Formats: sequence, structure tokens, C-alpha cells
Amino acid sequence: MPSLIERLLPDYDEALDLDGFSGRRLASRLSAIAEIGLTAEDGSGRPGYSPAEKKAKDLVCDWMRDAGLAVRRDAAGNCFGRRAGRSDHLPVVLCGSHIDTVPNGGHFDGVLGVLLALETAEMWKATGFEPERPYEIVIFSEEEGSSFNVGCVGSSAIVGAPLIEQLGGVSDHNGRSFSSAVEQVGLSLADFPAARRDLSQIAAFVEVHIEQGLVLEGHGLPVGIVSGICGLVSLEMTVTGQAGHAGTTPMAYRRDALVAASRIVAAVSELPGQVSDTAVATVGQLNVSPNGSNVVPGRVRFSVDIRDVAAEPLERLVARIVETATRLASTAGVTLSWTRTFSQPPIAVDEKLKAQQAEAMRAVNLAAFELPSGAGHDAMVMGEHVPMAMFFVRSKDGISHNPREFSSLNDCATAAHALSRFLTRLVTNTD
Amino acid sequence: MPSLIERLLPDYDEALDLDGFSGRRLASRLSAIAEIGLTAEDGSGRPGYSPAEKKAKDLVCDWMRDAGLAVRRDAAGNCFGRRAGRSDHLPVVLCGSHIDTVPNGGHFDGVLGVLLALETAEMWKATGFEPERPYEIVIFSEEEGSSFNVGCVGSSAIVGAPLIEQLGGVSDHNGRSFSSAVEQVGLSLADFPAARRDLSQIAAFVEVHIEQGLVLEGHGLPVGIVSGICGLVSLEMTVTGQAGHAGTTPMAYRRDALVAASRIVAAVSELPGQVSDTAVATVGQLNVSPNGSNVVPGRVRFSVDIRDVAAEPLERLVARIVETATRLASTAGVTLSWTRTFSQPPIAVDEKLKAQQAEAMRAVNLAAFELPSGAGHDAMVMGEHVPMAMFFVRSKDGISHNPREFSSLNDCATAAHALSRFLTRLVTNTD
Repeated sequence: MPSLIERLLPDYDEALDLDGFSGRRLASRLSAIAEIGLTAEDGSGRPGYSPAEKKAKDLVCDWMRDAGLAVRRDAAGNCFGRRAGRSDHLPVVLCGSHIDTVPNGGHFDGVLGVLLALETAEMWKATGFEPERPYEIVIFSEEEGSSFNVGCVGSSAIVGAPLIEQLGGVSDHNGRSFSSAVEQVGLSLADFPAARRDLSQIAAFVEVHIEQGLVLEGHGLPVGIVSGICGLVSLEMTVTGQAGHAGTTPMAYRRDALVAASRIVAAVSELPGQVSDTAVATVGQLNVSPNGSNVVPGRVRFSVDIRDVAAEPLERLVARIVETATRLASTAGVTLSWTRTFSQPPIAVDEKLKAQQAEAMRAVNLAAFELPSGAGHDAMVMGEHVPMAMFFVRSKDGISHNPREFSSLNDCATAAHALSRFLTRLVTNTD
Repeated sequence: MPSLIERLLPDYDEALDLDGFSGRRLASRLSAIAEIGLTAEDGSGRPGYSPAEKKAKDLVCDWMRDAGLAVRRDAAGNCFGRRAGRSDHLPVVLCGSHIDTVPNGGHFDGVLGVLLALETAEMWKATGFEPERPYEIVIFSEEEGSSFNVGCVGSSAIVGAPLIEQLGGVSDHNGRSFSSAVEQVGLSLADFPAARRDLSQIAAFVEVHIEQGLVLEGHGLPVGIVSGICGLVSLEMTVTGQAGHAGTTPMAYRRDALVAASRIVAAVSELPGQVSDTAVATVGQLNVSPNGSNVVPGRVRFSVDIRDVAAEPLERLVARIVETATRLASTAGVTLSWTRTFSQPPIAVDEKLKAQQAEAMRAVNLAAFELPSGAGHDAMVMGEHVPMAMFFVRSKDGISHNPREFSSLNDCATAAHALSRFLTRLVTNTD
């Protein structure tokens, strides 16, 4: 496969090189990071707190220094590049994302948000713009949680989330402790609490991220405004009927757990639309017991993943799914048990910031199109504590967490211009 | 758990001890066989061609000798006990079943049919009845196919089925060859073809078997007449949609393979009743890919097991299932592929024999209730070549292939009387 820069540049519209933005610089940096931890399948392999993640952070820190930023690393390994404001005592505008990846992941997830935050600093430097407020780029540590199944570690450390206290007990599937992993990159888990920041001194957190979905592509739009980060309720349901011989059990005598579960799965797919336009519900995991071709299934266990941007419709949908499943199970003469295995409330974006995002979008001739974020991000953690805003960039074919993940350089450049307009406003307006 | 005889005798109605039948003898023999290969969970463990199966056969052969029968073992390990007829040159009436079991199986499947065939000989001996035709009890080898996944070996050897030629290439999951397994019990696979019999010299084959289902229990009947042995068509279907992130893929953008497969599974359960009263269709095995709780399923593979007693409705049901699945997949925007992995045509029972079974049932004050056999049996193999009839005995809770498999001694005794009436007629009437 050609290198990333060779895939990005040919289609680039150089008319987008304005206001100090450089498409070639962005493409070359995306490509340089992609080389760190490159997998045999041309994917990115930079687990959180791995030497590869550290190497990528160090490279970005070099670029930040070159852009005239003051660089520091905190106790949790998060990296910052600060551009002082003319009123440098004012709360900071923070912008960034993460640089770690899932195993054999893509070259845009996380890293694009970091490099676009840096691109704004580059543009200001090129145009001689001087921010009123201080501005900081952030590279968060370990967002994906690939190795230890605990994500958003860096952002959690900044806000002082309880998660940080629990990392001492965490280990990966090889039995390696989280603590020894961070020591390998020169950190000490005992010091992590020192990464906590005074949140009153953060005016806003802004993150650009690839969409990882099909909505922007479906609407033919390069960039969108995130309307909110979905809350998530996970259910586990078990349908218990009666196993039996597929040949000797007439249809009328059956209590087939899979037939009942199938009616529930089909119904679950029809309920989100009754509640809101943004709600989704997914049965992604389903296991049949005993799962023999000549045995009427006796038990089926399945997950239900339920998301929406607002708490009220989310809980209404959960209730409707449970009611419907209970009714269908009862009709089929099987028993249903269920538990709520996980709950994460929706995180709102700041309405004032969202209006200012819309203005910035229109200023660069983009539609102020809104879409929810169905996945969690560092912005979800930050948004619980400080005003938060997100942009999404179009993902080709909606593919993510995969070497084929791709966003065109034109789309990335368009996002850079919208972001820089928005951040310029934020660091200027000191209301 | 109390021994089998202690579970059988307390509820026994001794009024059934008539015409030479002995409930205590039958219970004691069932119990003695159950002790051979008894598992830790009180089940039966007598795989085909194992030393335990041989030991059980040897014990029954002893009882057959005690009953005055001429005992022989054929090249495939099948055991016969012959009562000469007054016209001993006439084609024989053959009655029996198998004595091997699935791993940790029940104490009635197979063995009851062997012991009831012997009970008829005991009753004739006690009453001084002399058959016109010769009568043979048969203990077939390896009906279950538990170890080598090849069942009905003994009956296939008798009829000279092509299966026998293929056993040289068969081995179990430990790599042990079928050939070495039979050597362990004093047989040689090379000799198996010699077990073939002149089928024109078999007047009829009769088998009593437990129902392994809920129909007789549901009707409150101890014994039923098998109306036919179901044909079986096995399909494997694959639904392919598009995997996606459960959070970032709005409902309207999904091509969820599991939602589509669920609609098919639910529809499959409703189709048999449209075709016949006896047809069944089962999705027993279903596997989701990638099967992650936060991933929209991209592919689902499942089996469809379709059975009926007559070929025309069976094939009509297969066609209807394929049509319905194709239509539902198309509506859901997913692709469906399917293959027919197995076909076994239905085996009819002999109509004249069935009428004589009904007369025998009524003669012992039983309803001549008919039900199909959804499972295969040695009678299926025999029925392709000679006139065949089967009786089913009520199974408690429909449970089979399980230590909890149970038929009451009263039900077994009732079956013994119906069988003996029927066989007496068959060995008398020499039309």
C-alpha cells in the first residue's frame, strides 16, 4: 500500500492552503505518526502507555516546540503545548485529543484531533494572531483502553475522576499490571493524582474527531457539529425455554428460547425510532445454548446496547425495550431475566459554544449540521466538568478502528479552518 | 439416587403380570443393564463397540439362552436370539433395538426395545405358545453413533448399506480409528460385509422405542403407533449485512445481519403449521459475527433442521422456508446464501402392519393413537428394505439422552402386552 502521505496528497485542493494552513504539513505529520507502530496490515498499533505512544507524543511535542509553544508533560503522561495569552491569567482554552490506538487501528482516530489543534497554533503563528486568552494543545494518554480495558485515562486524571484511584488493581490479559506498564514509559502510577488540574481555570475544552460513522458521508458534508455525547445503558437479557429434540418435539409443544429471543431482537430494532431520531439500540452479542443443529434451543443470552443524547428519551427507550421483551417472552411461554450491566449518562455540549461553532462553520461556508456522538471520547470526560464542544470529520465508508479508516485531506483541511475560526473566537472573546 | 429397580417397582400395577409377562423380571433386567457403564451422574455410558456395550450384549444373550433361544453374533457384532417356527423355512419376524447409549444417556433408549422383544419370547415360553414363523430378537450394534459420528451401524450392516464400505476411513475425535475400536471387542471391520442378510427372508422388522418427546404424555397415553419416520433436510444459511459501531451507526444506516436473521428465525417457526400437522422446523445453532456487545452484527450463520413424515410436504416446507428467508433478507437490505447440507427421505411404515398394530392395541384396551417419529432409528434403516412397524412408549417429561430419561414400569408393561399381541399375530398369520 502507498504511504499515507501518498494517499492524502493527490486529491488535495491547494486552494485550502490559506490563513496559514498547510495541507502538505498536515499530511506529512499524519503520515509521520502513522509510521510509529505501523502494523503488518498497514494499521496503527500504539497502545496507551506503550513505547510507541510515547514516541508519537515526543514527536508532536517537538513540533509544538517548533511552533513556539511551551511544552510540558504531566504526571499521567498527558502532553501540553501552551501558547500564552495577552491576558495569561485568564482560564485557558484547551483543545486536543489522543494519539494511542486500538490494535491494528486507523491513522486518523485521535491523532487528527491533536494535529488540528496544533494546526490552529501554526496558523496563528503564520498570520501573527495574538490570543487574548491562553491556548493549550493537549495529547491525552490512553483513550482507547485497548490493553487494560480502561479508557480515557489521561482525561480522567486531569478531572480527578475516581477511576484513577482504581488503576492499582488493573492488569492486562497477560497479567501485566497497569502500574508496571506506566513505569516502562517513565511514569509512576503513584504520581497520577498530581495530574489533576484546577478545572475553574479551563474556559472550554474542544475536540475534533473523525465521525467513525456514515452520517456525514450520507449527507455529503465534510464536517459536523456534535450535538451531544450519547448516554449508554447496557442490558444483558437471558431467555429460558425448554431444550428438546428437534425431531421429537412437535411445534405446538415447544418453548423455543431462540424463537422468543428472535422476536425480541427484531422488536428492539424498531423501538428507537418511536422514542427519538437519535436513539439507537443494538443486540450485538447473542449466544445460544446448547447450540446444536438438532436441538430446540433451551436458553439464549444477549446484550442490548442502548444510546441517546438525552437522558429522558434514553430511559424511556430502556423501559420500552424491557416491557416489550417481557411481553414477547410471556406470549412465547418462556422466562426472561435481565440486568443493567452498565449506565453512562449523556453528556451535553455547551449550548453557547455550539452557537459559536455554528457561526464559525457558516463563516467558512459550511452548513451548521449537527449530529450526536454515539461513542465516548475524552470530550465526554471533560464535558462533565467544563464547557465542551466537538467537531466531527467525515469518515470514508464510516470505517474506523481498522487500517482502512480514512478521511480525505480536503475534509481535514476544511475542519482545520472551521476549528481555527472557532478557537480564534474563543481566545478573543473574554466575556 | 435409588437404583433403577427401586424407582420402577413401587408404582407398578401387578395386575399387568398376565399372559406370562413379569414386571419384576423386566425391571430387574432394565436395572442390571443400567449398572453396566453407569456414570457418575447415574446415567448410562455404553458407546457403540465399547467393552460396556459388549458386556450388556453378553448379558442379554445369557437371558436369551435361558429363554430357550438359539443365540448367535454376526460379523458386525449384532446379536440374535432365534425361536424356531413350526414352519421354520418361512421368512423370519425380527424384533429388537440397540443397547448402546449416548455419553451419560438414559436407561430406556434402545434397551427397552431389546428387552420387550425378549419379553415376548418369555411370554410365549410361559404360555406354551408355538409360533408358525421363526422369530428373532436382535440387538443392533452402535445405533447412536456417539464416538464416530456414524450411527445405525449394525442395522446398516444387515441391509448391506454403502455406509459399511466407508467405515475404514472413520476415526473419533481422539484419532482412534473405527477399525481399531471394533478389534477391541473381538471383531474385524474387514468381516463386516458378511453380516449382510438375505432380506427376502425377513418378513417384518418391529421396533419398540421410547418416544423421546412429549406427545404421548400430552395425550395421556402410554403407547402409540408410529405413523412414519420423518425425512430430514438440513440447511445452513448465512446472512451478511454490514458490521458497524453500535454507537456511531444510526438505525437508518444499518444493515444489521442479526435483526434480519431474527426475522427469519421467527418466520421459520411459523411455517411448519402451514404445511402439515406433523412438520417441524428448528433453528438450533446460530452464531453471530463479530459478536461484540457494541458492534452491529455483520454476519450470522444458522442451521435449519426441517422434518416431516411425507416427502411432498417436507419439500414444500423447505421451499417455503427458503422463499421466506430470501424475501426477508431482501427487505432488510442484507444478502442471504444457503446450502442444503443433508437430506434423508421419509421412511414409510408398512400400512398392513400398521392396521394389525391398531388391532393389537385395541385388543389390549388401548387407543390406536398414531404419531410420527421425528428421530431416526434402526427401524429407519430396516424400513427402506423390509416391511417395518414401530411402537413408541411414553417418555416422562419428554426427556431423553439424559440420566433423567424415564418411562414407568406400567407403561413398559402395557407396551409389552401390545407388542406381544402384535407379534403373536405376525408369527401366526402366514399369508
